[in-house]
Amino acid sequence: MPAPAITLLTDFGTADGYVAEVKGVLCTRAPGVPLLDMSHDIPAQDITAARLAVARYWRRFPVGTVHLVVVDPGVGTTRGALAVESEGRFLVGPDNGVLSPALFTLDAHAVHLAVGPLVSATFHGRDVFGPAAAQLALGAPLDLLGERCLEPVRLRTPQPHRAPDGTVHGEVLTIDRFGNAVTNLVVREPGTVHIGGQEARLVRTYGDAAPGELVAVIGSSGLVEVARRDGHAAEWLGVGRGHRAIWSPNG
Amino acid sequence: MPAPAITLLTDFGTADGYVAEVKGVLCTRAPGVPLLDMSHDIPAQDITAARLAVARYWRRFPVGTVHLVVVDPGVGTTRGALAVESEGRFLVGPDNGVLSPALFTLDAHAVHLAVGPLVSATFHGRDVFGPAAAQLALGAPLDLLGERCLEPVRLRTPQPHRAPDGTVHGEVLTIDRFGNAVTNLVVREPGTVHIGGQEARLVRTYGDAAPGELVAVIGSSGLVEVARRDGHAAEWLGVGRGHRAIWSPNG
Amino acid sequence: MPAPAITLLTDFGTADGYVAEVKGVLCTRAPGVPLLDMSHDIPAQDITAARLAVARYWRRFPVGTVHLVVVDPGVGTTRGALAVESEGRFLVGPDNGVLSPALFTLDAHAVHLAVGPLVSATFHGRDVFGPAAAQLALGAPLDLLGERCLEPVRLRTPQPHRAPDGTVHGEVLTIDRFGNAVTNLVVREPGTVHIGGQEARLVRTYGDAAPGELVAVIGSSGLVEVARRDGHAAEWLGVGRGHRAIWSPNG
Repeated sequence: MPAPAITLLTDFGTADGYVAEVKGVLCTRAPGVPLLDMSHDIPAQDITAARLAVARYWRRFPVGTVHLVVVDPGVGTTRGALAVESEGRFLVGPDNGVLSPALFTLDAHAVHLAVGPLVSATFHGRDVFGPAAAQLALGAPLDLLGERCLEPVRLRTPQPHRAPDGTVHGEVLTIDRFGNAVTNLVVREPGTVHIGGQEARLVRTYGDAAPGELVAVIGSSGLVEVARRDGHAAEWLGVGRGHRAIWSPNG
Repeated sequence: MPAPAITLLTDFGTADGYVAEVKGVLCTRAPGVPLLDMSHDIPAQDITAARLAVARYWRRFPVGTVHLVVVDPGVGTTRGALAVESEGRFLVGPDNGVLSPALFTLDAHAVHLAVGPLVSATFHGRDVFGPAAAQLALGAPLDLLGERCLEPVRLRTPQPHRAPDGTVHGEVLTIDRFGNAVTNLVVREPGTVHIGGQEARLVRTYGDAAPGELVAVIGSSGLVEVARRDGHAAEWLGVGRGHRAIWSPNG
Repeated sequence: MPAPAITLLTDFGTADGYVAEVKGVLCTRAPGVPLLDMSHDIPAQDITAARLAVARYWRRFPVGTVHLVVVDPGVGTTRGALAVESEGRFLVGPDNGVLSPALFTLDAHAVHLAVGPLVSATFHGRDVFGPAAAQLALGAPLDLLGERCLEPVRLRTPQPHRAPDGTVHGEVLTIDRFGNAVTNLVVREPGTVHIGGQEARLVRTYGDAAPGELVAVIGSSGLVEVARRDGHAAEWLGVGRGHRAIWSPNG
């Protein structure tokens, strides 16, 4: 039974024809399987951004879905090429950590894709990953695609730590389009986030903020986000990925 | 019979995984229904831009199509959540005016979507609107989704008015990607548009303009657009949304 | 038998509802045919960029695919409107050269699409090209759409030339998202590219470059690209489309 969908995540942008070429390969080799764009605007060569995006969506799709992920600063080097099966979904991409979210499950397994000598040294999305995704979408078993890979690159999101004084020290993971600073903090009690020299009290929703107020909310992934009502929090604070964010409980 | 398509319009951008999460929900809950991107680049929280875009496309799709529209500055506040049926199409989104174009028809009716207490306070696209769109796409009747909403927010495009001297006073609604200023003027006779201290004569097509000339044409929605041959009219004029545009007949 | 897909390439951007309108026309008139976005971010009115993108993908799709290409600075002028059949694929778009890659095959033929008097003078993507693409996707023979066009506009990529001293003189065709300068040079022996006052040695892959080094690689279309490891080559060199690139053999 063909896959319910092949999804595409790349950093190719869409100002030229590269994404289009990959879709041509998929449409030809996996006829009838719907192609769904996740993003082609991942910042160029940003493995962390790609990994965080994959973490958001890979498990929300039906069993059998094939996720193609091509953010690949190491194309043409000795970095490996992977296909992964995890919780019934398949993922294909470079062995540089972008597929990590699916590699920490109990049943994950990965294989090395063979890269033939005639393959382009610069466009594995079209020549290696696309064809492998099409094979999986048509039902090929994972082990048909290559030898088992026992130690794929697995990157973790940095974890916050609790200091002796009860504060929790975390950091900014990413800035979203609305300027909210998404941190790695997970909290369950009222408190305040200290970030960029400012304080943000934890509120239930953006709507609980006064105009211009900096607040912290528990975002859609369960992580604390710092937002500014009617403004761009990250620019206003001057913070970006990796910037420190400290939570202190009230009282 | 499942819907011919679910369309998606958001202001999420595609640099991260939010659109992808919504598509995962739709793909899982409405299997086999094609997903079609309208735009994810609506300017952040710009209800007017979303409403004008929806006006362009909602009725061009086949009966049964479900339009998901998530431009939602009020997420997490008390603003309502709507599902709408109008001329055989369905629309789902916040009750902030973005669905207005479908709310002025003779047969429009709307229901309030219930938002449960466990739902994310920040991501109703994934947790409220997406699931409702999937239900409608599978054929659920509108009234199954919530109580009838008798007074949904309905925003109108500002209308031009005719002055005693015969001129018509309107305004710029939006600037398109080519720099054309789309106004709310509707004209049926030769004349001139006064805008940004300049004059633009009405011509039939862009091709009737001399290089660098400012002209007015009747655009694809029947509204007067001011364009500059081989240039960006709005930047050159220094005009944006809401800027005055006055039409005077010839002679 | 309906087409395996209709692909869309435009310069409309996606900040408003124009692409959405075209998709509504296609979804209504060619029900069930998958719509695949190639790009809507072709630089505004850039016929060369569109043509180079089309060259990349048109032949990679299955026989029967319909490619809709709307980059159309001449809309509303006397420029013609075309439908093309070439190697079993169909292409629809303005007669301004964007369809050139499919017009140099042995079996290419083209017809003029009739543009009725009631059609919008500004939006042929919706009113002329979209409906024609839908007809072809449903299996209409090309000749049903219009009279044979014997001399469609055909633009060629500029060719490099070999100087008496053995160097090859070419130029930059385009800059990709990673800042690589894609040239029209095709080489088969070791050598050096001279560009922007700098030299780039030919290496097999990006991975063979030292950090910050400028190198030349044979890209995925067989053309020489100039790249800078961990940097944006074109900005660093100050080069853009049309800039000279000269290759000299080693020794």
